Amino acid sequence: MSGHPDQIRDLVPQATFRRARSAEAKAHRRAAILIAAEELTRRDGVRTVTLAKLGAAVGLGKSNVLRYFGTREEIFLELTIRQWREWVGTLIARIDTVRPLPEVVDLVSASLVERPLTCELFSQAFTNLEDNVSIEVALEFKRTRSTLIDTLAEHVAARQSVLNRAETRELLDAAVMLASAVWVVANPPPKVRSIYALDTELQHGRIVFATTYPRALAALAAGLPSLR
Amino acid sequence: MSGHPDQIRDLVPQATFRRARSAEAKAHRRAAILIAAEELTRRDGVRTVTLAKLGAAVGLGKSNVLRYFGTREEIFLELTIRQWREWVGTLIARIDTVRPLPEVVDLVSASLVERPLTCELFSQAFTNLEDNVSIEVALEFKRTRSTLIDTLAEHVAARQSVLNRAETRELLDAAVMLASAVWVVANPPPKVRSIYALDTELQHGRIVFATTYPRALAALAAGLPSLR
Repeated sequence: MSGHPDQIRDLVPQATFRRARSAEAKAHRRAAILIAAEELTRRDGVRTVTLAKLGAAVGLGKSNVLRYFGTREEIFLELTIRQWREWVGTLIARIDTVRPLPEVVDLVSASLVERPLTCELFSQAFTNLEDNVSIEVALEFKRTRSTLIDTLAEHVAARQSVLNRAETRELLDAAVMLASAVWVVANPPPKVRSIYALDTELQHGRIVFATTYPRALAALAAGLPSLR
Repeated sequence: MSGHPDQIRDLVPQATFRRARSAEAKAHRRAAILIAAEELTRRDGVRTVTLAKLGAAVGLGKSNVLRYFGTREEIFLELTIRQWREWVGTLIARIDTVRPLPEVVDLVSASLVERPLTCELFSQAFTNLEDNVSIEVALEFKRTRSTLIDTLAEHVAARQSVLNRAETRELLDAAVMLASAVWVVANPPPKVRSIYALDTELQHGRIVFATTYPRALAALAAGLPSLR
């Protein structure tokens, strides 16, 4: 053991020191688990990432992973919250001036086309993740999501002159829901992907996220004012 | 045993008779399992309906249910195919004359607003069901879905004069994906529902299928021609 921690240990009461060290170690473990979850999800998708795989990636047994997060789903919901924050931050920075509505909408859809992990997590958050987490985590997730969409809506509403604030919020709610659904259909599990090789007609009608999603969102935005 | 089956038994070879009776019994069991799955799904949603619950509802053990369907997911995918057929059939019958596009689109969204079971199954089909079925069942599901959407698109394209055939197909693909996503967000599991009671601001921003979905679909339809 190096001298420095021992010197600190002399200066603070033992119990406080141990708590602080243990809190720090816990934070490190949580961070390591989140990084592993992110890497495994990028590679294999949320559904196939088990607690056992996560544990193996950070050198912990399956049940030890649960000392750092309440459930498997809490890990992914935490990851989802981080992805929301990053996505909204990046998008706000990019929509930096007033533009025609179609350009603003293109920036929104492009920002999701280039973020497969965000889309994958969105697509699982509502269907499979919210169910198996504590009330506190579920509430934090809902509140964070709502605040981030509000912030983004305020920003987007100010950067174009076609949609009002309520319509902008409506557009962004739809943008997230549509992204989830199109993502899932466009990225089926390996077995389903292999089906397309068996049937050229199915292959032809296949949904591709990078083309289907931007068009659907652009249409939705263009059509909103006609509902007034 | 009544006389009638015995008389038949005298007329056909024993093995053929037994196979026929066994095939009929199997079809009856499959039908009973599908009815039970439908009832339980209407009440509790797909995710909570286990093989054990299904077995209990039809007087079979969990593993015996799997003598009639390969997996739990195959039961729900079969139910999904039936719902697709019923939905498309009903909708085609309803869009019986040429109408303005917004009226046609309202008929489409109303047809899903009044079919919660169809929406629930759509929302689960891509996320959770396709993964754990045989290649044959997955292929049948994809082909049926594609044929039904094609049939519906042909019909809808002929009943309004704004969208061409390709745009109509695009609209209907989006209609199904959007319905899945809005349905999931609007109908969270019980624990998440209880969260809304804790937070009036969240309650205020809550997505309601019967209002959010028709508006989003109407906007999408109205905006599609502007992308030409």
